[in-house]
Amino acid sequence: MTFLARIHIALKPSVLDPQGAAVVRALGSLGFDEVADVRVGRYGELRLAAPDEDAARARVTAMCDTLLANTIIERYEFTLEPTPAEETA
Amino acid sequence: MTFLARIHIALKPSVLDPQGAAVVRALGSLGFDEVADVRVGRYGELRLAAPDEDAARARVTAMCDTLLANTIIERYEFTLEPTPAEETA
Repeated sequence: MTFLARIHIALKPSVLDPQGAAVVRALGSLGFDEVADVRVGRYGELRLAAPDEDAARARVTAMCDTLLANTIIERYEFTLEPTPAEETA
Repeated sequence: MTFLARIHIALKPSVLDPQGAAVVRALGSLGFDEVADVRVGRYGELRLAAPDEDAARARVTAMCDTLLANTIIERYEFTLEPTPAEETA
């Protein structure tokens, strides 16, 4: 089966987010001064083959822990959905 | 009211994603060779004050069009949810 994993990676809430603070300032200078807080993270869509959803979940977790996320300062979460093999994102 | 906007920004499907291709190669070299395709994008959580959800939607759309997304090569989508003003992400 082929699965589409949608992965969100963001800084942990306790970690300072200077990029988010810069976006707040930039928005403010453009007149969007109603914005109180911005957190910036990464988003990825990943297509993988796996025998079933549990196996896919285990593999994507391993990918996040090994390469995709820095688990010291970042948290991640993902969803999985089965997809036809030939579909493109 | 205060709203939390969760914004996804990704390259349009027709645009080459070299960062995603690099992730596919890096995962393959780590043994994750079941991965067929990766698209990398940005994810942001933005807290803003607005009189109602329609107003918040209009403002976040304007922010994305003006600053957050490059609409020539990127597409964006977002969800809005009302939040207590004092909550932190």
